[in-house]
Amino acid sequence: MRFQAVKGMRDFYPDDMRVRNWIVDTWRRVSLRNGFEEYDAPILEHLDLLAAKSGQEIAGQLFELTDRGGRRLAIRPEITPSLARMINARINTLPRPVKWFSVPRLCRAENPQRGRLREFFQWNVDVIGEPSPLADAECVFAAVDFLRETGLTADDVKVRYASRPLMTAALRHAGAADDEMDKALAAIDKRSKVPPEAFEEMLAAALGAPAAAGGVQRFLGEPTAGAAPAPTELVARVDGLAAAPGVAEALAELAQFASHLDRLDVGDWCVFDPQIVRGLAYYTGIVYEVIAGGERAVAGGGRYDNLLEALGGPAGVGGTGFGMGDVVLALVLQDRGKVPAFAERLDYFVIDAEDGALDEALRVTAELRRGGRSADFSYRRAALGKQLKEANRRGARAAVLVWQDRLAVKDLVTGEQADRKLAELV
Amino acid sequence: MRFQAVKGMRDFYPDDMRVRNWIVDTWRRVSLRNGFEEYDAPILEHLDLLAAKSGQEIAGQLFELTDRGGRRLAIRPEITPSLARMINARINTLPRPVKWFSVPRLCRAENPQRGRLREFFQWNVDVIGEPSPLADAECVFAAVDFLRETGLTADDVKVRYASRPLMTAALRHAGAADDEMDKALAAIDKRSKVPPEAFEEMLAAALGAPAAAGGVQRFLGEPTAGAAPAPTELVARVDGLAAAPGVAEALAELAQFASHLDRLDVGDWCVFDPQIVRGLAYYTGIVYEVIAGGERAVAGGGRYDNLLEALGGPAGVGGTGFGMGDVVLALVLQDRGKVPAFAERLDYFVIDAEDGALDEALRVTAELRRGGRSADFSYRRAALGKQLKEANRRGARAAVLVWQDRLAVKDLVTGEQADRKLAELV
Repeated sequence: MRFQAVKGMRDFYPDDMRVRNWIVDTWRRVSLRNGFEEYDAPILEHLDLLAAKSGQEIAGQLFELTDRGGRRLAIRPEITPSLARMINARINTLPRPVKWFSVPRLCRAENPQRGRLREFFQWNVDVIGEPSPLADAECVFAAVDFLRETGLTADDVKVRYASRPLMTAALRHAGAADDEMDKALAAIDKRSKVPPEAFEEMLAAALGAPAAAGGVQRFLGEPTAGAAPAPTELVARVDGLAAAPGVAEALAELAQFASHLDRLDVGDWCVFDPQIVRGLAYYTGIVYEVIAGGERAVAGGGRYDNLLEALGGPAGVGGTGFGMGDVVLALVLQDRGKVPAFAERLDYFVIDAEDGALDEALRVTAELRRGGRSADFSYRRAALGKQLKEANRRGARAAVLVWQDRLAVKDLVTGEQADRKLAELV
Repeated sequence: MRFQAVKGMRDFYPDDMRVRNWIVDTWRRVSLRNGFEEYDAPILEHLDLLAAKSGQEIAGQLFELTDRGGRRLAIRPEITPSLARMINARINTLPRPVKWFSVPRLCRAENPQRGRLREFFQWNVDVIGEPSPLADAECVFAAVDFLRETGLTADDVKVRYASRPLMTAALRHAGAADDEMDKALAAIDKRSKVPPEAFEEMLAAALGAPAAAGGVQRFLGEPTAGAAPAPTELVARVDGLAAAPGVAEALAELAQFASHLDRLDVGDWCVFDPQIVRGLAYYTGIVYEVIAGGERAVAGGGRYDNLLEALGGPAGVGGTGFGMGDVVLALVLQDRGKVPAFAERLDYFVIDAEDGALDEALRVTAELRRGGRSADFSYRRAALGKQLKEANRRGARAAVLVWQDRLAVKDLVTGEQADRKLAELV
């Protein structure tokens, strides 16, 4: 082969494209029925916008370039910086809350591996300008509404949520200094991926005082695949934590969030899990990951109340939302047998059933298409049997047999055949 | 504003996105009903693939970058090289003819101007492996099927077609040497954009012998907004051209092509225009442009029988197809008033009609969404009138008023209101 696709990026042949379109169309349909409006931004952004927003991880994974005008640009590795830029540009005229979604194509210059590619599609759902946990709950509802729509169940996937302020309060209460916070959060973020001893070492290394690590461990409790104890119960395990700054507010917010999830009838999909922190990113409130057993997170998100301001916008306009990539999702859907077969791909395959009937077959095909039906025909004049075979290969529901003076429809599932008028088919 | 969108690239706010989605969805629907299957490729390709395929024009307009592995890559400026690469990679297993379409996001590092941006979307429709002009006619049919679907008419846009082999034969017959061909074709390509004297000069400069330019001018005839004389008539105007090599075959092919267009009932959208050559690109047969008065071409395409081989594939597998960009198209559609208003964007807006009814409103909203209806509600508890106003602003068809023990639906168009059961709404 002289030319190949770029490493870690996918060609979408029609079979692959049908799966991608099924996922993307379902994302869109669910977003719209949840009252979100679609937006998009250029695939290229100014490097300084992406650098201003992104954590270290992402900034090191950019496909960068310089254009002819000397501008330093990069392919977007996520769409949140673009979202913040767009909202800030119209902050005085956009009615709030803003409920927007997008399905951007994103690129990250990292090493490809199972579930992680250098180009992918990501469903992004965000609410901007609404501080109440109702907005957080509504985003989670949209995620679950989608997962349920694909045929997945609460046994296949769980939304594991926590409160970033509660975790930070627990760390601070255990004695963590401000400059130890990031390292401690990073250690907790890795907890589910490393052996318990390795986690203990990482946490102890992050926190100067060994006693602090013990307090944090007590708060986190045992790792569990099911639900952790309730937030109030975990807080009660650590002396004095209940009275520590920010804890009562965080617990009240978690309780409201959980109550909204129940009202929205997705409570059984969601479990509290204190070790969810979402890495070093910019989250400030409730955070969550959608996790299917054995795979990387299908989705992740949470509240980010300082981002718009950090990107040049006004103070006090927060946001909340999540991103769900297509790569891990497709692995999970395939694994659970939820990807449809797409067997019927054409309404009619039109066949010239005698010599000289091609012109009439063309006319019929054109008429069917204009009428909104999908219809195709063979470029090659061939015997009826051969054309019927092509009709089957193409996934046609029925064949339309065309003679110069009549027309019949043959159902390719039942095999039944009957004379018909063209007008009846449109 | 601290951050701006990259120059010549568009932010799609929801109002813009609805227009883009309407165009793209219509492209997809028309493609599928015409029997084409969708494919896509990565947004980045190896630079040498794009350079091998593209004309000079495009190769000079690439957004290039080098990845961490030292690979020279570029954002695709067109998708045909990727299409050829993908087909070549499966040339022995793909059943032919291949009927594929795509709606790629493309970038070109050129100067933005009206109708030309640095990022755009382009509908690509191609048939690979079918030499008959029926395949060319089918591609034109698909283009017209789309244009008609948007509400445009044959008075708004025309498909202007010609034959590259016929033009080359006429040039050769007039005395053009092989190494003068590209310059002459480039001059003819510019004919409609420059004054007649400028064209005469360019053509004379391209062709060594002044007599040759006269012969070519006679063949081209007067520029006309309507149909040019028939191909046979133009050929007859030049002494001996009818008997020149390749002319009879080209005329026969044009006649067959025109006959198929008539059969497909799009003949009135199509006119022969000998000056269409499609620049310096790789075309080898019938070529065409879709032109709306006063604007750049909405679409352009034709037959390319050597491209797969040039990109490492086997000899003898030709292709034909076209590309239609979204930028000029949107200008034409807006100009002709064909862009819909998208007034109704939500089935239901759910309102808590009394204190304490929020939980019930959330339950109703979730239930409606699960049932496939689009439904939203206000995050803020507000009086009925205020919430009705929000419902109208959001483009809701109806409001659902929720009390703790009953429910009513208010039609926001007629204003009628009636008590209903939730199950009746899903």
